[in-house]
Amino acid sequence: MTQNPSEKTSVTLLGLGAMGTALARTWLAAGHPLTVWNRTPARAAVLAAEGAKVADSAAEAVAANTLVVVCLLDDASVDEALADADLTGRDLVNLTTGTPAQARDRAEWAHGRGARYLDGGIMAVPPMVGVPEAGGYVFYSGSRQLFEQHRETLGAPLGTTYVGEDAGFAALHDVALLSAMYGMFAGAAHAFALIREEDIDPTSFAPLLADWLVAMAPAVHQTAERLRGGDHSQAVDSSLAMQVAGIPTFLTTAEQQGVSPELLSPYFALMRRGLAEGDGEEDPTGMIDLLVR
Amino acid sequence: MTQNPSEKTSVTLLGLGAMGTALARTWLAAGHPLTVWNRTPARAAVLAAEGAKVADSAAEAVAANTLVVVCLLDDASVDEALADADLTGRDLVNLTTGTPAQARDRAEWAHGRGARYLDGGIMAVPPMVGVPEAGGYVFYSGSRQLFEQHRETLGAPLGTTYVGEDAGFAALHDVALLSAMYGMFAGAAHAFALIREEDIDPTSFAPLLADWLVAMAPAVHQTAERLRGGDHSQAVDSSLAMQVAGIPTFLTTAEQQGVSPELLSPYFALMRRGLAEGDGEEDPTGMIDLLVR
Ligand SMILES: NC(=O)c1ccc[n+]([C@@H]2O[C@H](COP(=O)([O-])OP(=O)(O)OC[C@H]3O[C@@H](n4cnc5c(N)ncnc54)[C@H](OP(=O)(O)O)[C@@H]3O)[C@@H](O)[C@H]2O)c1
Ligand SMILES: NC(=O)c1ccc[n+]([C@@H]2O[C@H](COP(=O)([O-])OP(=O)(O)OC[C@H]3O[C@@H](n4cnc5c(N)ncnc54)[C@H](OP(=O)(O)O)[C@@H]3O)[C@@H](O)[C@H]2O)c1
Repeated sequence: MTQNPSEKTSVTLLGLGAMGTALARTWLAAGHPLTVWNRTPARAAVLAAEGAKVADSAAEAVAANTLVVVCLLDDASVDEALADADLTGRDLVNLTTGTPAQARDRAEWAHGRGARYLDGGIMAVPPMVGVPEAGGYVFYSGSRQLFEQHRETLGAPLGTTYVGEDAGFAALHDVALLSAMYGMFAGAAHAFALIREEDIDPTSFAPLLADWLVAMAPAVHQTAERLRGGDHSQAVDSSLAMQVAGIPTFLTTAEQQGVSPELLSPYFALMRRGLAEGDGEEDPTGMIDLLVR
Repeated sequence: MTQNPSEKTSVTLLGLGAMGTALARTWLAAGHPLTVWNRTPARAAVLAAEGAKVADSAAEAVAANTLVVVCLLDDASVDEALADADLTGRDLVNLTTGTPAQARDRAEWAHGRGARYLDGGIMAVPPMVGVPEAGGYVFYSGSRQLFEQHRETLGAPLGTTYVGEDAGFAALHDVALLSAMYGMFAGAAHAFALIREEDIDPTSFAPLLADWLVAMAPAVHQTAERLRGGDHSQAVDSSLAMQVAGIPTFLTTAEQQGVSPELLSPYFALMRRGLAEGDGEEDPTGMIDLLVR
């Protein structure tokens, strides 16, 4: 399949780490003319062989195209790489992971230099790039015009989910989902630790664990309804008091299995604080506000 | 549809709380002759109207049938309820939530009184009972003969998953899966807290969160493979060092959003301990052994 490169938006990409390289290959495969730059030139040389134009400096790469995508290690490396670049009239899309505040600051900084700005948070690992079935996507926030105009180009390597004009929202969504994932992994680590010394094959246990987590994940919909409505009284399935009553079973089992409860005990402590402030009949969702100061 | 009751195994059920009542109704609906007992008689009266025989005492209920299912509040209530019952020749199935040690002790206790023993851990809430599409099930462990013989009867209200002769394994699986779920809920609570003060509708955020957790849950399969093989070197996607490098983004974002990191910080601390003991290239799975003493 040959594509006419002139029909496709030209892209400049700064950063050819594991993620940048995967993005570059998908744009090349989709027929987008691509100009790349990487601090360490060797990584760009590989892509030159695959059809990318290699710029000698970040400034030169930025000058080559209107759409400039940045995928570097962190916010400090973005500062360094773009120090000498003229961003006037550019559409800057920053896929570098950072905090919401860094994204908001970067948006102001870009506007001050005459560019439109879109921030991105990548919800995928490199092997998922260019593989739509894998379900990877990028949260985008910031300039809606920029997003709409380049939606197709941005959508070539990974799915696109626009979450608002506030440039910090992509990073916020990214961090929030990864935080929840770490909570799930912490819970799974505790579960595996519980069976560690028993004659139970972890690979027989894993499907039970995965299916259970998949079955329970949709509970976040009820949590969201409660949070939106602001009414945490009268739990439907399992009141806070019932759940607190079950805590000793978890802690005693951990102790009997020789497992430190450190990953779960803060959640149990929060449940107990929630119960102390409520009437017991309420839904555990109310506890969430105890985390926010 | 009329069923001939005499074809179906007769069941005795002790305990008509929310769960026991749901179990009782499914057995009655499936045509199993059912004898029930509950400490507070009013709850049994309701079921009498639906076709259950009501016993005046737990001992009388136990005397009525070979298969005796117990679904009471906790292990102490099982002690109390069965104090005067003659268990000789009975098949005792205990669905009361407890620790693995309580289940093992209860098995010995039952054997000493002439009964076969099967322990169960219910992975469902009452509305899922009798609704196969809901996917609820019970972990069973203990006497395999008892389980095989009564598999069909036990399977009427909820699915059945037998996990071994060790009577404690059902409770262990139950507690392990619920522990992992609490970790996931803790992570989700942190995620919701992060967006709490922003102009983001939690019910728009929830589908993103649920889909992400569902997509990431199968990562436990890789964890299990690593645990079985015992080799935690050379992470495939994301080494421990890379993950530790990302921690400040999570903590700073939480701080900027005014959210206490208490639910996630123990996991981050564990990652850092794991890194301090390793070479950085390893998979985070190795951390799990740091939880087990
Ligand atoms: N990999 C993933 O699974 C994944 C998933 C989601 C999001 N992300 C995010 O995507 C971004 C890139 O990740 P990656 O996996 O590609 O990282 P990586 O493989 O470590 O590559 C880092 C890139 O940043 C460049 N860089 C570092 N410091 C620099 C500086 N001071 N000036 C200029 N360039 C600098 C590196 O250039 P050199 O080649 O010269 O070192 C390299 O191109 C990160 O923000 C990461 O959080 C990654
Ligand atoms: N509900 C759930 O979502 C769920 C899910 C999984 C597992 N389970 C487990 O299933 C079991 C029963 O739960 P449930 O929801 O039915 O609880 P429940 O509605 O609170 O009912 C508790 C039952 O235990 C009886 N009981 C309490 N103390 C007793 C004692 N000292 N002597 C005799 N009977 C006593 C109660 O009798 P009275 O009527 O006289 O008070 C009642 O029948 C528990 O172990 C629970 O952990 C429940």
